[in-house]
Amino acid sequence: MPQINRQLVLASRPQGAVTPDNFRLVETPLAPLADGELRVRNHFLSLDPYMRGRMNDSKSYAAPQPLDEVMIGGTVGEVVESKNPKFAVGDKVVAMFGWQEYGVSNGAGVQKVDDTHVPLSAYLGPVGMPGVTAWYGLNRIIAPKAGETVVVSAASGAVGSVVGQLAKLAGARAVGIAGGADKCRYVVETLGFDACVDYKAGNLYKDLKAVTPDGVDGYFENVGGEVLDVTLARMNAFGRIALCGFIAGYDGQPLPLKHPSLMLTQRLLVQGFIVSEHMEVWPEALKQLGTLVAQNKLQYRETIAQGLDAAPEAFMGLLKGKNFGKQLVKLICANQGVARCSNSQARWR
Amino acid sequence: MPQINRQLVLASRPQGAVTPDNFRLVETPLAPLADGELRVRNHFLSLDPYMRGRMNDSKSYAAPQPLDEVMIGGTVGEVVESKNPKFAVGDKVVAMFGWQEYGVSNGAGVQKVDDTHVPLSAYLGPVGMPGVTAWYGLNRIIAPKAGETVVVSAASGAVGSVVGQLAKLAGARAVGIAGGADKCRYVVETLGFDACVDYKAGNLYKDLKAVTPDGVDGYFENVGGEVLDVTLARMNAFGRIALCGFIAGYDGQPLPLKHPSLMLTQRLLVQGFIVSEHMEVWPEALKQLGTLVAQNKLQYRETIAQGLDAAPEAFMGLLKGKNFGKQLVKLICANQGVARCSNSQARWR
Repeated sequence: MPQINRQLVLASRPQGAVTPDNFRLVETPLAPLADGELRVRNHFLSLDPYMRGRMNDSKSYAAPQPLDEVMIGGTVGEVVESKNPKFAVGDKVVAMFGWQEYGVSNGAGVQKVDDTHVPLSAYLGPVGMPGVTAWYGLNRIIAPKAGETVVVSAASGAVGSVVGQLAKLAGARAVGIAGGADKCRYVVETLGFDACVDYKAGNLYKDLKAVTPDGVDGYFENVGGEVLDVTLARMNAFGRIALCGFIAGYDGQPLPLKHPSLMLTQRLLVQGFIVSEHMEVWPEALKQLGTLVAQNKLQYRETIAQGLDAAPEAFMGLLKGKNFGKQLVKLICANQGVARCSNSQARWR
Repeated sequence: MPQINRQLVLASRPQGAVTPDNFRLVETPLAPLADGELRVRNHFLSLDPYMRGRMNDSKSYAAPQPLDEVMIGGTVGEVVESKNPKFAVGDKVVAMFGWQEYGVSNGAGVQKVDDTHVPLSAYLGPVGMPGVTAWYGLNRIIAPKAGETVVVSAASGAVGSVVGQLAKLAGARAVGIAGGADKCRYVVETLGFDACVDYKAGNLYKDLKAVTPDGVDGYFENVGGEVLDVTLARMNAFGRIALCGFIAGYDGQPLPLKHPSLMLTQRLLVQGFIVSEHMEVWPEALKQLGTLVAQNKLQYRETIAQGLDAAPEAFMGLLKGKNFGKQLVKLICANQGVARCSNSQARWR
């Protein structure tokens, strides 16, 4: 086993868009474990839009990411050393070890997972935080009735893809909004949505209207900005909007809502939420989502960057919608055992 | 009894602000009653912001007011002729007879009321639609806990004044926003709010912050525009916003919301509502509100325009916040029996 843990820390806060300079690589010797501790070799790191918010030093629902500390993030990996009786070498676990190759814990916040029927990486996607986020917003806020129309933005992404598929399973009509013809084709053909609108085509209102002839009853918002304005204008009376993300505004640019009075005239329910504040639903949601993935009834797609060094560029791409499906960073290369992935050619793809 | 019913009809739709030309006076002979009908001499007409929306020919929660028909509106009055066994001459009733001196009905939509302990006009205010609107938004959407802070805009108005007093009765801290020092003084000294901010003083954010040191947990919105932007910026996590009116935008000017992402970062619940869609709460709400008024525990104030001819100017004043408390039009002058109020000097005051 290498004696070095490679880590990416937050070197500086972004001024507008994230740049590679905001991160710094740190190499730290592996310290011996204390009694009760375990060490995990992380296999995958999850990259998620919420991380952008944490990089700012501003009021939000969570404390800012501290400078010079390892970037926050969800991980899956394998226990490689344990002085904790509850964990054995070889156990697969999900945790929040962040942007680093190894994590150490006393067991708190580390969950054993079974990768017999569900791939390990799925615990960072449809059977993890993004999946539960979709489940909560759809079931607890939108609560679609059969025959209603549910729209979701960033529809090919880790959260949006699950929202639409769960809406379909609930008997609703699912309409996605995504960036580009390829993503839209995937949303309809692979994920099984009824329709998808490419916001990059430049006719968002007209195109959305064409595929929502009966209006919109539920909207799951990941994006904000023009996409929210346009969808709001299609909402039916008593519609429900689950506010999950405003990725279009994460760099700090103003992102006004053009016609807030529609929330009144259409008697809408708008609810912002953070899934980590609803831990009571996780067991039920994860059970359902895990079963659906194991039965191949819930499709998902991953974009995997190779190696820790590729994480910053992959993250910048995620914020611009360059990823396709769940953005992961592979921290260990399967055909190299526990060796590191090649760093010098590391690129997201 | 006069043989003529005087009525104000919608003559044209406003282009921007309402003007007197949008209305036309019509004199119609009183037709004999058919079997089952009753005739009411209206004593008071209620003027309400929702009427402005109906004057537009646009999509909203209600059909537009038709041209050349009597303007919609709530009324209270006295039965003066009846061929309906359920109503006797002398009965006091509340109905939606609109901007006219007499109303005829088969009894549908006409409710007998008791003015022994509650003044007749109060059935158009705290014990009528405005009161129930306040009751619903406060109790069913904001649902304040003791010690929480509730803010209401248009705080001296027919709805806002009840919101704050009910919030106080629920043990919450009540903060009003109103236009002008006189209204703010009334809100604190007579209505018993904990504080009031005069938005005309020009320091809305700073002034609101000063009187909401613990932030805002519930907001009852009657106004929209800057007032909403500023209050949104003071909302605590898990705050609730009841959207009741956007009077600032009723003339069609754009009224964007500057920072909609606050709804997410603060995990707010925002709910638009129309009280007429929640008839199930009216009996309970009216009973509570009537008891409070009869016991002198719920204060209210009226601005009374004299005579039907004064209604257009009074309505234009209402939309600009010139009224102080509930805006009514007195359609019958007490010291003149059933004679008309003097028309030529009719002015809101």
